[in-house]
Amino acid sequence: MTGTQVLLLGTSLVASILLCAIRSGDGESVASPIVRIAELEIDAAQLDAYKLALKDEIETSIRVEPGVLTLYAVSLKEHPEQIRLFEMYKDAASYESHLKSSHFQAYKVRTQTMVKGLRLIETEPILLGSKAR
Amino acid sequence: MTGTQVLLLGTSLVASILLCAIRSGDGESVASPIVRIAELEIDAAQLDAYKLALKDEIETSIRVEPGVLTLYAVSLKEHPEQIRLFEMYKDAASYESHLKSSHFQAYKVRTQTMVKGLRLIETEPILLGSKAR
Repeated sequence: MTGTQVLLLGTSLVASILLCAIRSGDGESVASPIVRIAELEIDAAQLDAYKLALKDEIETSIRVEPGVLTLYAVSLKEHPEQIRLFEMYKDAASYESHLKSSHFQAYKVRTQTMVKGLRLIETEPILLGSKAR
Repeated sequence: MTGTQVLLLGTSLVASILLCAIRSGDGESVASPIVRIAELEIDAAQLDAYKLALKDEIETSIRVEPGVLTLYAVSLKEHPEQIRLFEMYKDAASYESHLKSSHFQAYKVRTQTMVKGLRLIETEPILLGSKAR
């Protein structure tokens, strides 16, 4: 898995275990996240260039936008030109702000000839379980 | 989004920001994660029961298995009986161990009449960006 990167913003891996289930309405910042899935098909001839642009966009968004919680990008092993994004935003305002950000707009321009297909899927979280880092 | 839960194991939301990009081969525990997507179609008449079983399985896996890093479960807003899972394991051994665990096996038995369709998709991470919590 050469080249795989896991980007963490914050402290490094936290080993201590403490159960903390946050329910909607408790006032926590991650209580009502917006979760979206994006399915993309990329021009195979521009796949490397697209991945670079995507990495730039994810890194900047996580670093500068307080409301962008998660941007996971993977390609399908059997169809590398098919990309899936799992996106989590703090709330609707954070999501709208992200769409209007200069780095996201720059990514859209930079990749417009690379993206052959794009399907955006709105979702309702059931349970978003993860280890703290 | 009533009933939405975000499950965090570890410390609560960490506000401090520190960039830490971990590359494959650096020896970090999340350097070469196994990332899998599952697409499920659930019997609509048993959807609530399925969600309960899924929540139990996720909560237990995150709590007791050190190598289960992320289990995100969402339903599609336009097709609530369609469920997507985004799963991240520390490494291949953690993934195999999860499949053999008693709680996962119990979940499979409990839900076998509920799941009408299941597609497992192996992926290659491009960049897994998230805020620390």
